[in-house]
Amino acid sequence: MLAISSFGPRNRNIVRLWKRTVACSSAPERGVGGIYPPIATPFTPTEEVDYEKLEENVQKYAKIPFRGLVVQGSNGEFPYLTVEERVEVVRHVRRALPKDKLVMAGSGCESTQATVRMSESMAQAGADAVLVVTPCFYRGRMDSRALIRHYTQVADSSPVPVVLYSVPANTGLELPVEAVVALSQHPNIVGLKDSGGDITRMALIAHKTRGSGLQLLAGSAGFLLAAYAVGAVGGVCALANVLGPQLCQLEQLCLSGSWEEARELQGRLIEPNAAVTRKFGVAALKQAMGWFGYHGGECRSPLRPLSEAEAKLLRKDFTSSGWL
Amino acid sequence: MLAISSFGPRNRNIVRLWKRTVACSSAPERGVGGIYPPIATPFTPTEEVDYEKLEENVQKYAKIPFRGLVVQGSNGEFPYLTVEERVEVVRHVRRALPKDKLVMAGSGCESTQATVRMSESMAQAGADAVLVVTPCFYRGRMDSRALIRHYTQVADSSPVPVVLYSVPANTGLELPVEAVVALSQHPNIVGLKDSGGDITRMALIAHKTRGSGLQLLAGSAGFLLAAYAVGAVGGVCALANVLGPQLCQLEQLCLSGSWEEARELQGRLIEPNAAVTRKFGVAALKQAMGWFGYHGGECRSPLRPLSEAEAKLLRKDFTSSGWL
Amino acid sequence: MLAISSFGPRNRNIVRLWKRTVACSSAPERGVGGIYPPIATPFTPTEEVDYEKLEENVQKYAKIPFRGLVVQGSNGEFPYLTVEERVEVVRHVRRALPKDKLVMAGSGCESTQATVRMSESMAQAGADAVLVVTPCFYRGRMDSRALIRHYTQVADSSPVPVVLYSVPANTGLELPVEAVVALSQHPNIVGLKDSGGDITRMALIAHKTRGSGLQLLAGSAGFLLAAYAVGAVGGVCALANVLGPQLCQLEQLCLSGSWEEARELQGRLIEPNAAVTRKFGVAALKQAMGWFGYHGGECRSPLRPLSEAEAKLLRKDFTSSGWL
Amino acid sequence: MLAISSFGPRNRNIVRLWKRTVACSSAPERGVGGIYPPIATPFTPTEEVDYEKLEENVQKYAKIPFRGLVVQGSNGEFPYLTVEERVEVVRHVRRALPKDKLVMAGSGCESTQATVRMSESMAQAGADAVLVVTPCFYRGRMDSRALIRHYTQVADSSPVPVVLYSVPANTGLELPVEAVVALSQHPNIVGLKDSGGDITRMALIAHKTRGSGLQLLAGSAGFLLAAYAVGAVGGVCALANVLGPQLCQLEQLCLSGSWEEARELQGRLIEPNAAVTRKFGVAALKQAMGWFGYHGGECRSPLRPLSEAEAKLLRKDFTSSGWL
Repeated sequence: MLAISSFGPRNRNIVRLWKRTVACSSAPERGVGGIYPPIATPFTPTEEVDYEKLEENVQKYAKIPFRGLVVQGSNGEFPYLTVEERVEVVRHVRRALPKDKLVMAGSGCESTQATVRMSESMAQAGADAVLVVTPCFYRGRMDSRALIRHYTQVADSSPVPVVLYSVPANTGLELPVEAVVALSQHPNIVGLKDSGGDITRMALIAHKTRGSGLQLLAGSAGFLLAAYAVGAVGGVCALANVLGPQLCQLEQLCLSGSWEEARELQGRLIEPNAAVTRKFGVAALKQAMGWFGYHGGECRSPLRPLSEAEAKLLRKDFTSSGWL
Repeated sequence: MLAISSFGPRNRNIVRLWKRTVACSSAPERGVGGIYPPIATPFTPTEEVDYEKLEENVQKYAKIPFRGLVVQGSNGEFPYLTVEERVEVVRHVRRALPKDKLVMAGSGCESTQATVRMSESMAQAGADAVLVVTPCFYRGRMDSRALIRHYTQVADSSPVPVVLYSVPANTGLELPVEAVVALSQHPNIVGLKDSGGDITRMALIAHKTRGSGLQLLAGSAGFLLAAYAVGAVGGVCALANVLGPQLCQLEQLCLSGSWEEARELQGRLIEPNAAVTRKFGVAALKQAMGWFGYHGGECRSPLRPLSEAEAKLLRKDFTSSGWL
Repeated sequence: MLAISSFGPRNRNIVRLWKRTVACSSAPERGVGGIYPPIATPFTPTEEVDYEKLEENVQKYAKIPFRGLVVQGSNGEFPYLTVEERVEVVRHVRRALPKDKLVMAGSGCESTQATVRMSESMAQAGADAVLVVTPCFYRGRMDSRALIRHYTQVADSSPVPVVLYSVPANTGLELPVEAVVALSQHPNIVGLKDSGGDITRMALIAHKTRGSGLQLLAGSAGFLLAAYAVGAVGGVCALANVLGPQLCQLEQLCLSGSWEEARELQGRLIEPNAAVTRKFGVAALKQAMGWFGYHGGECRSPLRPLSEAEAKLLRKDFTSSGWL
Repeated sequence: MLAISSFGPRNRNIVRLWKRTVACSSAPERGVGGIYPPIATPFTPTEEVDYEKLEENVQKYAKIPFRGLVVQGSNGEFPYLTVEERVEVVRHVRRALPKDKLVMAGSGCESTQATVRMSESMAQAGADAVLVVTPCFYRGRMDSRALIRHYTQVADSSPVPVVLYSVPANTGLELPVEAVVALSQHPNIVGLKDSGGDITRMALIAHKTRGSGLQLLAGSAGFLLAAYAVGAVGGVCALANVLGPQLCQLEQLCLSGSWEEARELQGRLIEPNAAVTRKFGVAALKQAMGWFGYHGGECRSPLRPLSEAEAKLLRKDFTSSGWL
């Protein structure tokens, strides 16, 4: 963790350099680039956080060449955690994860002041960076002006670097390109996780922020190859919770320009990815985790486990692609 | 406040009777029927809850023939309040409001267990009923099965009656008709606030729940007349924060069958209502409150005050309808 | 049929009077008010227009107290008819229908010039009025400016009065309120069929055009009662193809202020109506027509007949409401 | 033009070969791969088709290394042309275009039988292939079953190869992946123009049809690079009407694996492309054509020319990217 207070003048070169050496002593030149699973939060049968199983998962993930873990992305059921639980989960993950892996912690809340406080708490709990989802309840009024102000206040006060997070499927709101471009100038805003899957938008953002050092992360495995093609440097992919090595392999194929092989691998990942995200959601991800040797655990209510029929369809999406 | 534990058998007649005598010694035969403003939460310039101004507003509202006040509907900026503030605001409103007016408190959270706890806290703080918005972050999985289970658990444990709340503009989710019909059989679920404005749906719900005692409340002033026409018994209307007497007059015209006059009045309310809701949102409502002698106060960030141009347009929507 | 050229000055009183005495010697004071089935076009097994069965249907409909028939509304499969067929169908309907019933013919095309020509052809074929759907392929550019110009040109040249037609479920476009208000001043524009079901919008339109003589028709049976409550004077309802007498009865209950009975009847019509419209579409309407003694006939491709499972669900929507 | 009747058995290898040698003696191994402008239809001030200016445009386009021209894509205002005009425009284009360039003609209509006839007429007028948009008026019933049947009937009878066309922005409908996969087995269906921009979907289609010979064309310049990255072999891009050489250059950079340069060029094309498509539409494309030496001409009503303010914004989108 590097304190923002160590910054002097808003010199663009220094900022760009810093953005690239963010947060972590190992491989600082990568910045936040790389593959992350947005980890699930296992619950006990009585719906309490199962910290033991959480740590076991983390220890297994530590052996995969991930850049780090995202804690409390949309798959982490963070809207179902209390303020205290959100921080406690981050603390446990940080403790269980080797220091050379980044912890990127979701700290977004609806109000600016709650997000500021949560970002501070996450940093104190050991997060290397915070991932801040767009507030969305009053989405009709969350225009660029409001969102730029929100993120600027959060980034000004956050002890650790901020990654913007746009996930319209959950929020009904896309962080506008002009807001991303403006915010990319902030020294403490280092990246954008974009889960919308609009590749034209991602290409435009990459193009318009190319001088700022902002790093673009694909928010889903379905368009990881395409995202790399237009300039992304990593991905936060629910599917990495179950097919982590494969996603790291896809990353390598893209980085080395082996597009033919990359296409073949990407093609086989799309349907399993859809199955654990928009088709069946978090419960499917947790069920699939069991098949691949991880602890999924229960979902917290009102999320429900899959029906038997759904579980069969889910399994078919993995078998027909040859992963099970 | 009436404890749910006083219920014996789920006898439909008793349930219907009880649903109609809910919560309040004055006019028990009305149940939750009538007009409510979903009150705004005034903030100080430093964005703290301004309890003093809140109480002054409540005292003014007490003089209007409202059935009660809704505290922490969508206009109350409840997603921006901490858990403690949410309860504290209800406590202050209850204290400032005469006993013959109902306090209906928004207690919805994303998780079932948080909603259960919040409903208990709201009841302890003096709420006569709780208004429970649909959880929505994982909207793709919030089907009837999940929502029926969520609301049943909340209603089973809530010390005060529960009013369902469907507000797709904010949540991106409509509580399915079949879920409403199933839940209408629960003895502790007494009403539905429907803000979607789909009058066919409201007519169908009124028709399918006519034996259950469920009371239907229009969630917006724009379709109040039409809602009464299809069987609603009241309304929770943002516009009542500024044009309360007029909305109570519209209620009377509908109840007495003076449809011609009702239509004329309804017609003049639509544009001001749109202006303080979907067009300009909470900030507009607060600005208009100032024009009508109430304390609007600041919004909490990231909500922003209206621009000057917006404020002009807002004012025009009131002047052109003859209200200013 | 009354030629527009008989108009002199655009005197509002004359216009209002004329709008109310449009088109038809019988009951001229009703204007276009009343109930209409938007009739289906029966096809033979080889997908040719079955004019014989069409005329038999028309003769049966003539015995129901409809104001007239809409030919080539959305249920008439008009996008599947050639230019020549569209006119020929109108000619046959006019021939088979008694003179005291109106023929309102859908003449909307994508281009203004095609719509102008089609309106002329429809008038020559005997239409008393034309129903003009919003052009929609370039919906992103169909703003008020473009639509006002389109409808003005059509109305200027149409030999018979024009009824505006907004049906967002099919067109992805709602005719803006401001356009409706502007167009209501045109002496040859006499009504609006609104199928969107947004009752707030309908109430606002009724309010803002109350001085113009524009007559509002509900575009679906699901919100017919509510539409009357806010000021509509009739309805064009797919369901009238099968439950015509019942819809005329609902009209009478609304007009006579028997709201309690109207609500009961309206409630029973919503699910069958949904079944033959948005749920299963034209094929369902045609199947149900058979059950009620009319000729539905085939759909033209690519529309397909219902599957057996769908047909069962359709039937259940009629039996559970007591209509079969 | 190659008659479908020359097909013998549905042998996959023969089919694949044929699909790749479709339609044109020059460069048959490319199939339909390459860049196409979907040309605009210039109108005179009285809104008649301006065939002279159309031919002049075609002669200019002939000098750019396009694979051919798309006539009556969405930018061609085809919904505004009569049946006769649609065919006549194709005839003129074919006459003015050198034989080594393909003419791909939009022949989609709402009904299957009209589409069958139009495809025949287009082929007789000289089209090398037909581009068939999804019928959409009854979009709620246009499921895979209906669309597979529609396209199969069209492809069975079409004298020239068929390219599927999915353009949800105009049709409100996406051709389902399962329908594309099924249709890719048809010997006379050789390609898919996908304008939706959902790159995950395009990657999945490329993956699932990799054995069938179906060729994937990007339907917009905004995601051309990304489409090549996931397996597309060309693009039909409105922007090619004005920046044709640049799009052919982008094609070459992608085909040669010069991704760095490709990204830079792609980045500069996104905003001009958005401006002439979803932002301002056909009128903007026509206005920009004038700036680049082509005849845009009028739009046919109800499409309107840009306002002055819009034209300024349009120009800025070209100047700020360095194209003007």
